[in-house]
Amino acid sequence: MNAPAFRFQPRDPDYAARCRASFGRQQAMLLIGARLVNVEPGLAEIELAYRDDLTQQKGYVHGGIIGMIADSACGYAAYSLMPASSSLVSVEYKINLLAPAIGDILFARGEVLRPGRTLTVARADIHGRTGGKTVHIATMQQTLMMLPDTPDARE
Amino acid sequence: MNAPAFRFQPRDPDYAARCRASFGRQQAMLLIGARLVNVEPGLAEIELAYRDDLTQQKGYVHGGIIGMIADSACGYAAYSLMPASSSLVSVEYKINLLAPAIGDILFARGEVLRPGRTLTVARADIHGRTGGKTVHIATMQQTLMMLPDTPDARE
Amino acid sequence: MNAPAFRFQPRDPDYAARCRASFGRQQAMLLIGARLVNVEPGLAEIELAYRDDLTQQKGYVHGGIIGMIADSACGYAAYSLMPASSSLVSVEYKINLLAPAIGDILFARGEVLRPGRTLTVARADIHGRTGGKTVHIATMQQTLMMLPDTPDARE
Amino acid sequence: MNAPAFRFQPRDPDYAARCRASFGRQQAMLLIGARLVNVEPGLAEIELAYRDDLTQQKGYVHGGIIGMIADSACGYAAYSLMPASSSLVSVEYKINLLAPAIGDILFARGEVLRPGRTLTVARADIHGRTGGKTVHIATMQQTLMMLPDTPDARE
Repeated sequence: MNAPAFRFQPRDPDYAARCRASFGRQQAMLLIGARLVNVEPGLAEIELAYRDDLTQQKGYVHGGIIGMIADSACGYAAYSLMPASSSLVSVEYKINLLAPAIGDILFARGEVLRPGRTLTVARADIHGRTGGKTVHIATMQQTLMMLPDTPDARE
Repeated sequence: MNAPAFRFQPRDPDYAARCRASFGRQQAMLLIGARLVNVEPGLAEIELAYRDDLTQQKGYVHGGIIGMIADSACGYAAYSLMPASSSLVSVEYKINLLAPAIGDILFARGEVLRPGRTLTVARADIHGRTGGKTVHIATMQQTLMMLPDTPDARE
Repeated sequence: MNAPAFRFQPRDPDYAARCRASFGRQQAMLLIGARLVNVEPGLAEIELAYRDDLTQQKGYVHGGIIGMIADSACGYAAYSLMPASSSLVSVEYKINLLAPAIGDILFARGEVLRPGRTLTVARADIHGRTGGKTVHIATMQQTLMMLPDTPDARE
Repeated sequence: MNAPAFRFQPRDPDYAARCRASFGRQQAMLLIGARLVNVEPGLAEIELAYRDDLTQQKGYVHGGIIGMIADSACGYAAYSLMPASSSLVSVEYKINLLAPAIGDILFARGEVLRPGRTLTVARADIHGRTGGKTVHIATMQQTLMMLPDTPDARE
């Protein structure tokens, strides 16, 4: 039912460099050690290595941290399809936490479900990996709004 | 329509100390500098001071960080009503980002809407404050599940 | 924390008549017997009398029917603040079902949390009433988008 | 990333008949003319033919009606995996409306993302079809709770 992400044509040929530069300005991603490991038109993938200082009271990665990487994965999936002169804001997101966030590496894959002139809807799935074992730990559905002719950096 | 939080009777008279101890084990809250400043039966308040390393690409606090403090505010609002022997997990949450997260201090107030034997529904509102000015920056609706007779710490 | 709805100034002095006329064109509301009983700036209230043909398999009003009246309550709360020449679409909504939908009358109260030029965020609470007893059965958080200079009727 | 639904093993060999009988007791589905056209382990499909009395003010199917069939599609996808002696309630759902609900036939496909002992998470995609043309009109993410040893009918 869900068409693969490569159906999308980027309007900006330099979309990948633009997304990586924007991600590089997200100091919160640096704080938690998240890395943008892949960007394609309508798709973004973020990896996060387990660290003790990312955990909640039971030693699992905090649900809010899961939300952070899922939010950014959806955001850059959407931003890859935007014009170079635009910026993007998250309107809202909803996340289900399916299993405790365990794994040496957490992996968030965001995909655009429907790109729009003003609003884009994206989805992210988050998996945890330890050795060869993968667990589906969360799924997010998100709405984003494009801001035309708006700088994507501090003004 | 929404009854005030003090209508709730805690089952554990030491609920406040228990919530503070649990929050103290959330290393992710320490990482971002969030503080649990108030707990009452069915209510929790968290403060977060602005820091450059919490921001997204435009210099506002990252939407995922907003989600983190809102998630914990709902969580401790719910946990205040639980028995001492229980633990709690976030099932899901949905957050609307209403305005850019600006302010010297962000303030998340979580309140229980409906406590339940298994599931509890809570809501959080997040405001940013700069000097005397307050802006409503986000609102969250969350579902939590109580785990009876489960340690609330690393095993 | 939540400011009362009367803080809002309608841009269209005839907002109430406009909302009632729009509601009157919603044939789905007629089908289920829902009535728009109150509109104020940023607020709308809908009543629905229990009927056997609105139920799910256990005899409670179907969760989707609860969603319908909550969706319309949020929508007309938002539409009351819009210009006369605009139309409105629901972008998304999230609803928690807090208790079985019992009651002779269901009552949905929608309120605008934050009005915006493009997007408006609203919330609805749904209660069931039987005699003098009221139960909080659901709560919704919704995002709506204004369509400027767009007819609010079949074209 | 999303495993196909047939990975699930039903615990009740008569799951399909049980789901169809339960759906048959949903009078609200009869009211709107929705039909359960397929049930497999972890999957349910519902069809709804366009009718004027299902519309909102602009002549599209009401967003709440879309929510109704998506809610039931998720519900029966989940219920197919439950024991025969159980019942099921919707805890919450979130739906994004991606395009106006046009089409001679609306088609909701619900799939279980993660089945659980207490909670199950499901997703539904809703498409509209007119002739050979299909439009993706909505997507839902839902949490459901199993009630063990509970009749799935009026008591």
